[in-house]
Amino acid sequence: MNKEIEFTIEIEKLKNIFRRTKHIYDNKYENDAEHSWHIAVMAMIFKDYVDFEIDELKVIKMLLVHDLVEIYAGDTYCYDTEGYKTKEKRELNAAKKLFSILPEGKSKIFFDLWREFEDMKTNDSLYANSLDRLCPMIINLYGDGGSWNENIVRREMVEKRGEVLTNISEKFKNILTEILDEAESRGYFHE
Amino acid sequence: MNKEIEFTIEIEKLKNIFRRTKHIYDNKYENDAEHSWHIAVMAMIFKDYVDFEIDELKVIKMLLVHDLVEIYAGDTYCYDTEGYKTKEKRELNAAKKLFSILPEGKSKIFFDLWREFEDMKTNDSLYANSLDRLCPMIINLYGDGGSWNENIVRREMVEKRGEVLTNISEKFKNILTEILDEAESRGYFHE
Repeated sequence: MNKEIEFTIEIEKLKNIFRRTKHIYDNKYENDAEHSWHIAVMAMIFKDYVDFEIDELKVIKMLLVHDLVEIYAGDTYCYDTEGYKTKEKRELNAAKKLFSILPEGKSKIFFDLWREFEDMKTNDSLYANSLDRLCPMIINLYGDGGSWNENIVRREMVEKRGEVLTNISEKFKNILTEILDEAESRGYFHE
Repeated sequence: MNKEIEFTIEIEKLKNIFRRTKHIYDNKYENDAEHSWHIAVMAMIFKDYVDFEIDELKVIKMLLVHDLVEIYAGDTYCYDTEGYKTKEKRELNAAKKLFSILPEGKSKIFFDLWREFEDMKTNDSLYANSLDRLCPMIINLYGDGGSWNENIVRREMVEKRGEVLTNISEKFKNILTEILDEAESRGYFHE
């Protein structure tokens, strides 16, 4: 079979990798494909929330592919400290296996995008990671507390997760503070 | 509320707009958010299947936003001739309503991308539309006939739907023919 078609079929599995976050409107668990789409669109509308230049194409591509490794490595909940101990190794193996389905040049593009997102060393990857973290916070706040309620999450855990937003721009820092304050006033965090 | 956040919450509804196409691996109906993600990734891997220059960023953005109007206008199945009579008007109204949530400059970007995709007059939009049509064909073929079986679809209907692929490149034309021949040999089309 044509390698591009084989890859298209294999990544369809992302539609069945479920996250802890729940849809705002029907309370079903969100999957990675939906999430990746959502933050890729956010990349288009929040560009002016950071003060540095953004390579929009690279950011959007990073967001579209950043969770693909979870097809083999599974979703690691962001507040799962045990899971995080093995996350890096599991995901590196998954990246090698999945992206090798593609012809060499294309495989390298996907691998490099995933690596850059994970390393969080470039401005583009910091912006991308900010959106990846901001989106579930918005969904939780407007979805009656969502996964925060279910997973016994405290305010300082979300604050720590949102550190990247605080560091990259004043606008994102303010949004994060507003979300945290509003969520706290609604009683969505555990003590 | 901040307009960008309001828009982020409103488009979350795309995760609940269901298509006729079913997931390959669990046979559930696919939603528009998953579909939009899938074809945006395809845009990254099928670029060399067309002979003309592609503005990759524009194509990916078009694919990410092309179905947003269905949040208000609903999904119109591609072989629903009755639905197609009112599709244009319903979707134009939906585009105006939805994109006006955003600040003016950003609103125009979304509207223009949606319009260009629908008009199918530029090379970028022809490539984007090709992927939008190719993806469900791949999913149907590798998902045991999928929505073709359920909706009494004949080969010539899919052929007509795939015309854009035939017109823009030899490689896409060949892929389409291979898919149609294979699907026919497996008995997935109605007589």
